[in-house]
Amino acid sequence: MGHGMTIENTDTRPHARPTNDDYRLGTDAYSDEQRIAVLAKLEEYLGDQRGRLLGYQVNLSLDGHAALGRFLGYHINNIGDPFVDSNYSLHSRWLERAVLEHYAGLWHAPLPEDAAHARDEDAWGYVLSMGSTEGNLYAMWNARDYLDGNALVRDEVSGDASCRTSYLRAKHPDDNPNAYAPVAFFSQETHYSHIKAMRVLDIPTFYDLGGSLYPGECPIDVTGTGTQTYNGWPLGGVPTTGGDEGPGTVDIDALVALVDFFAAKGHPVLVNFNIGSVFKGAYDDVQGACERLRPVFETHGLVDRTVRFDPDDPERVSVRNGYWIHVDGALGGAYAPYLEKARDTGLIDSAPPIFDFRIPEVSSIVTSGHKYPGAPVPTGIYMSRAGSKLRPPSDPAVVSSPDSTFAGSRSGFASLAMWNHLAQFSEDQQVRQAAEVLRIAEYTADRLKTLSTLLKERGEPWAEDGIEVGHGDHALSVWFQQPRAEITRKYSLACVPLNLGGRRHDYSHVYVMPHVTQELIDELLDDLSQPGAFDRSADQDAERPPFPHQR
Amino acid sequence: MGHGMTIENTDTRPHARPTNDDYRLGTDAYSDEQRIAVLAKLEEYLGDQRGRLLGYQVNLSLDGHAALGRFLGYHINNIGDPFVDSNYSLHSRWLERAVLEHYAGLWHAPLPEDAAHARDEDAWGYVLSMGSTEGNLYAMWNARDYLDGNALVRDEVSGDASCRTSYLRAKHPDDNPNAYAPVAFFSQETHYSHIKAMRVLDIPTFYDLGGSLYPGECPIDVTGTGTQTYNGWPLGGVPTTGGDEGPGTVDIDALVALVDFFAAKGHPVLVNFNIGSVFKGAYDDVQGACERLRPVFETHGLVDRTVRFDPDDPERVSVRNGYWIHVDGALGGAYAPYLEKARDTGLIDSAPPIFDFRIPEVSSIVTSGHKYPGAPVPTGIYMSRAGSKLRPPSDPAVVSSPDSTFAGSRSGFASLAMWNHLAQFSEDQQVRQAAEVLRIAEYTADRLKTLSTLLKERGEPWAEDGIEVGHGDHALSVWFQQPRAEITRKYSLACVPLNLGGRRHDYSHVYVMPHVTQELIDELLDDLSQPGAFDRSADQDAERPPFPHQR
Repeated sequence: MGHGMTIENTDTRPHARPTNDDYRLGTDAYSDEQRIAVLAKLEEYLGDQRGRLLGYQVNLSLDGHAALGRFLGYHINNIGDPFVDSNYSLHSRWLERAVLEHYAGLWHAPLPEDAAHARDEDAWGYVLSMGSTEGNLYAMWNARDYLDGNALVRDEVSGDASCRTSYLRAKHPDDNPNAYAPVAFFSQETHYSHIKAMRVLDIPTFYDLGGSLYPGECPIDVTGTGTQTYNGWPLGGVPTTGGDEGPGTVDIDALVALVDFFAAKGHPVLVNFNIGSVFKGAYDDVQGACERLRPVFETHGLVDRTVRFDPDDPERVSVRNGYWIHVDGALGGAYAPYLEKARDTGLIDSAPPIFDFRIPEVSSIVTSGHKYPGAPVPTGIYMSRAGSKLRPPSDPAVVSSPDSTFAGSRSGFASLAMWNHLAQFSEDQQVRQAAEVLRIAEYTADRLKTLSTLLKERGEPWAEDGIEVGHGDHALSVWFQQPRAEITRKYSLACVPLNLGGRRHDYSHVYVMPHVTQELIDELLDDLSQPGAFDRSADQDAERPPFPHQR
Repeated sequence: MGHGMTIENTDTRPHARPTNDDYRLGTDAYSDEQRIAVLAKLEEYLGDQRGRLLGYQVNLSLDGHAALGRFLGYHINNIGDPFVDSNYSLHSRWLERAVLEHYAGLWHAPLPEDAAHARDEDAWGYVLSMGSTEGNLYAMWNARDYLDGNALVRDEVSGDASCRTSYLRAKHPDDNPNAYAPVAFFSQETHYSHIKAMRVLDIPTFYDLGGSLYPGECPIDVTGTGTQTYNGWPLGGVPTTGGDEGPGTVDIDALVALVDFFAAKGHPVLVNFNIGSVFKGAYDDVQGACERLRPVFETHGLVDRTVRFDPDDPERVSVRNGYWIHVDGALGGAYAPYLEKARDTGLIDSAPPIFDFRIPEVSSIVTSGHKYPGAPVPTGIYMSRAGSKLRPPSDPAVVSSPDSTFAGSRSGFASLAMWNHLAQFSEDQQVRQAAEVLRIAEYTADRLKTLSTLLKERGEPWAEDGIEVGHGDHALSVWFQQPRAEITRKYSLACVPLNLGGRRHDYSHVYVMPHVTQELIDELLDDLSQPGAFDRSADQDAERPPFPHQR
């Protein structure tokens, strides 16, 4: 260890870390003693890590959940629609509906008791089994099929057509070949699951379509920003304000210019916004952006357009918008509403911008259950407007509940865990917790900035220019120059290389979640203040190449 | 109640069934007492249902799992690849890898310790968070991108191209415009998630493409079978042997004729087989079918064809097959290998046909964790050949493990539950359990057939022709005429309307899973033997229309 530094790190105790060999399954069963012993080894490892985990946006305060162990003797499955009970009787839909009602309230959308008689603007949703990636995929699928002119739940279809697997898809009007060719827009801070969704669903992004069909015609200029381009179009997404050194929020001027370009060519528009983006925890100004996009949509005929979706009956029409606004609130969707309430009651001075169903253009919102509220299993919420709901490909009689979700089997345990968490906190407690988490995030940013100044002043080797601390308004993420591997391992810090002005900079970030105490931040700062804390010369991964897509 | 019948049914106790109002979340928190009371109400309900659940293919013998409750205090997440550890330290990859090794062994594929140096024919896979629907979707996505000429993991791509979100997709050769236009084949017994996957991924089925491009040219004749057609092509899939009255296995002659038709037109071919199909529990003869398909693939140039996937470098080629064989073993993949071992040791006389990686054409297999082995949460296994692995859309540095799976966050608890189950049983116990489950299924079929004869003899109203009992070889499902609603509710029986010779017949089925005892079957038979057990005239759902797609 260089510079005489000592970082206490239990990782290095060889007996504490599980190995593949501990868990191999052979032809013999484990005895109960053996099995309990290796499970205890796993738990010891997890317990060691949990208390110090700072790098990921998951809440590890999960004290009330061990008591749910008695439900692990059941396979609880909410297969089918949350609002239509199935013949599979071991379900937890009553709890799922309560959780959905809670989020519908937080996001200001009415959730009708009788889903069969919902109005178009009402909410519908379900609890996710796979986390926000599932929700984002489902939203993008619904968006694609809404925009490219397929039949929706509310559309009546003729008998023959309903038996086909292929889509009832609108034929484009003679004067606009692009009328049912949606284009996707998202910022460079967007989670990698969106790029995956674009591939699975084969939806073109604005830069792929722009680079191949309209080379050199990009309405925004990104030269000199270090952004990679494809025939003049910025790869990776819409620029963010201030670039890599900025707070990570989408550049609204750039977004509006790009959307206007494609809307003018007749394309319907799919926009993703982030509320609590993956690395910087940034909040896009969804309300501000929608106010700017509204006249663009109106000008180019994307409001209440008429879609003739049924090839067997061209007189049958559906009136719907030519845009879909999705909000990926994987992290922020669950607590930003409480920051707003905290501001309204004077607990804090300001709150992130509004992102929810109060904005008429917002079509769908996703949040993760295991991130801010916290859950032992990946889960989350998908919520959309009832009137835009995708028509399920089939109605499986065997389940006797419509196949209106992405999964087949749906985890009833996930709804139970979400409910059990939410039931333990009053709204007042949630508001105060959100304000406290934000306070510790700001404390973290302040202390890191002070450290940065100090390191600069003392000309600390490897940090002679300071440690480039970044923190956006109301963000729970604070980023700074990546320290040596022992520290990133000790606190499970996430590390990302960014490209600033053509030079690679390696960053780490801290995510302040409800389990993170001020004392833990102080311990991190103590370690970071040690001489050589930023000396990565001995790290194995110091020379790894930057990852191409991730920003 | 007609006919003086009394069916003991705890469902009707109004105090035992949870309601929406029991679980509503408001601005106040639940007190611990309130919360524990309504959770106990849920558990009481689940406990009532569990002991009698007969209609679904889930094992409810989950005794060893409640002890895993202590892990519910952690959020365990295997985000990224199972074989590359991530910076998120709270994971259970050691257990996930043990589970994968177990299934690789069952399915006869080598799973290399060092995944980075796998041979093309070796196995790679991961534990699913959403169940087999996730695995089937991922398989179909991988298949589509393999067949339509995209770059795979093993393919080197040029630098520029790797930064785009759009596909590196082959341009079709001049002499075959269909070279990269895959067509999907699956039988009419196939799970509805496949139809969903076809929509999400926009892969045409043989009947959609046939009906629209080749009307009247269908190489098989389904007239007189009651199958709905689209320009002569059978809607819903490849016919099964003996139709709705048969055992539910794919008709290999029909499949080969249909594949030959499209292969001759230059299309690559995607075939799904079922091992333990959703309603009849049928086993397609994958080995027999592949032997018949092999010369078809060879004749039409679908073996080892050359794909030029990189538009920036047309000299760069990939040699791969023009077919993908997927096995949906959601149910059977987990126990059919034990039936084979039971036959080899003389415990039973015969076993289902071989379906696994011993067949060189098989590309991918999926099974569910919560079905046969049993698990408290939906989960399962996806496994494919390492050489056919999809290139991930991006490498998220923030996770530091490749995004080579369908989900982002992946449930570490699911791997823990799978491991905990498998560790408790020796191979010998698994073999004997599979043989015993099959014995009880055959006992159930025998008793129902005897009852059918009896009802016919006594001219029982509503069952004067017997009750149409069906049971395929080695199947764990036994189906028969749907009884009155009290009985279907009491045993949570799944109900499906079938179309036999143009007339609707309503069926129920029993799935004999490890938690089902002979005593429970005897109790069901007692209830079914009561006068009026098949009188559905008072049932609310007696007049519901048949569902269009489900068979």
